[in-house]
Amino acid sequence: MLRFEDAQKLISDEIERLEIPATPAGLYEPVRYILSNGGKRLRPTLAVLAANMFGDNVSGAIKPAIGIEIFHNFTLLHDDLMDNAGIRRGNPTVHVKWNPDVAILSGDAMSIMAHRFISYCDEKVMKRVLDIFNQTAIEVCEGQMMDMDFEGRDDVSEDEYIRMIELKTSVLIAASLEIGAITGGAGEKEAAALYDFGRNLGIAFQLQDDYLDTFGDTSTFGKKVGNDIITNKKTYLVITALKEASENDRQRLLDLYSGEQADADDKVREVLGIFNRCNIGKKTRAKTEDYFGKAYERLRAINVPGERKKVLDDFSRTLINRNY
Amino acid sequence: MLRFEDAQKLISDEIERLEIPATPAGLYEPVRYILSNGGKRLRPTLAVLAANMFGDNVSGAIKPAIGIEIFHNFTLLHDDLMDNAGIRRGNPTVHVKWNPDVAILSGDAMSIMAHRFISYCDEKVMKRVLDIFNQTAIEVCEGQMMDMDFEGRDDVSEDEYIRMIELKTSVLIAASLEIGAITGGAGEKEAAALYDFGRNLGIAFQLQDDYLDTFGDTSTFGKKVGNDIITNKKTYLVITALKEASENDRQRLLDLYSGEQADADDKVREVLGIFNRCNIGKKTRAKTEDYFGKAYERLRAINVPGERKKVLDDFSRTLINRNY
Repeated sequence: MLRFEDAQKLISDEIERLEIPATPAGLYEPVRYILSNGGKRLRPTLAVLAANMFGDNVSGAIKPAIGIEIFHNFTLLHDDLMDNAGIRRGNPTVHVKWNPDVAILSGDAMSIMAHRFISYCDEKVMKRVLDIFNQTAIEVCEGQMMDMDFEGRDDVSEDEYIRMIELKTSVLIAASLEIGAITGGAGEKEAAALYDFGRNLGIAFQLQDDYLDTFGDTSTFGKKVGNDIITNKKTYLVITALKEASENDRQRLLDLYSGEQADADDKVREVLGIFNRCNIGKKTRAKTEDYFGKAYERLRAINVPGERKKVLDDFSRTLINRNY
Repeated sequence: MLRFEDAQKLISDEIERLEIPATPAGLYEPVRYILSNGGKRLRPTLAVLAANMFGDNVSGAIKPAIGIEIFHNFTLLHDDLMDNAGIRRGNPTVHVKWNPDVAILSGDAMSIMAHRFISYCDEKVMKRVLDIFNQTAIEVCEGQMMDMDFEGRDDVSEDEYIRMIELKTSVLIAASLEIGAITGGAGEKEAAALYDFGRNLGIAFQLQDDYLDTFGDTSTFGKKVGNDIITNKKTYLVITALKEASENDRQRLLDLYSGEQADADDKVREVLGIFNRCNIGKKTRAKTEDYFGKAYERLRAINVPGERKKVLDDFSRTLINRNY
């Protein structure tokens, strides 16, 4: 059985070996740049591990896994352009280092490359794999659109928010696991269970991210705590607070989130006060644990020997225990 | 046998029946808008006609043909954004009617939808169809990048220019024909011949477009004549003139194309003078006819009864004879 790090290394080696054309340089240099820019390779690693649950030969999972990683990086590239983000993984984003047109076009090329790698799978499973990937890819766009829509709204419901993060983040993690499983020989039922494991895990992961951005420990979280509050980001925390807070706090929260504040630290402190008065930290943790619980349940139900599930099981425990 | 108009109608009926989701509206309204915005549906129509060359049942061609049309419209949507074009087919472009972010994201969704429709083909031909489409789609991006690169250069060679229009325009026409043929039951050799027919036809068509923009008759061409000159567009005409003109004319041409001119009519008149002194019109027509000739040769070589080729044969004759 592969350990998490083994699968991760298989993927990063494969990415290093990718033969990306030299010209037109304006198209392919940004592709090379963003793909060599690291990241955890979480999705393709999960695909390989899912394949490994059903057999020792994971070679059929590699190319589709690379396709998923390319697709994920394509969405980051275009999202950073739309969100006007200047830095990604410590380096300038493509639209900053080159220009917006290059970001649009090299992103377009990456989306196509992604589809191409996905199609490099055994013909016997091609239709199943493509159907899952194409459905997932469009859902990721829907999630990004919902996220953009939410910026201009202050009446986003909890259900809408969960649906948005499910589409924007979870479904690609879920599809990575399902596609990996299929290339590894899983039947419909097992593959669907892994999808659902990933879907719940992804939602839990995103809720945890929301929590950690506000309540996390800067030294272990790796990002500046409070950033979501400073940038008025609609997160599970503020959406729940708008529902749970007293009318006074609710109005103040809307004011605080309605524009840029003179003093960021004051804003963070005041918002934290409101969050604490309605127990947002505890509620978010409870919700997160709900989703982790559902994810586990699905993993447990899959009918393979326990040792074949151990790596994914351990991996989700690591996620649960990160930083709080 | 279907006539051109029959195949065109099959396609436009299918596009009208497309079930595009209602929400998120920001994602799908632009998709509906651009797809209902008309156009000649040239590529999918050619796909259906190519299928019809090899059998009477063209139903297997329809979905992939729609995929090709969606992909083509996706490239228009993103190209218009990159080129800052305000009008497309008489209507405001998506980034003007909505905004650039919506144009990026709804274009991304269309690219994914395109891949999905392409995959809706018989499993027996799926791998062949996907390989052709994925290769073609990335080439279209390469062509657009070359086109953008050429804007900043005054040393573009004729070969480079032909390669650019081949990638940006011809390969998708070629792939439409090849994919249609494959879904209609064509063997490798016939399908490849149709690809090559389309590739040469597409190059001829684009060269003709360059010619007509400068030498065409406004009343029949449908666009303002001289627009390419006014916007400093690198076309076959100016690239050839830069090679063929006297040193004086060459320098003057570089000056005229180096920025915006106070008087557009004066500029068009002066550039036309230079073009005429080095016989650019005649040279462009000769080059165009070369490519039309090669296209014909490939069509003629395909081993099906003459009446099965007639529609495509007539269609290319109509192209050759447009407006001059």
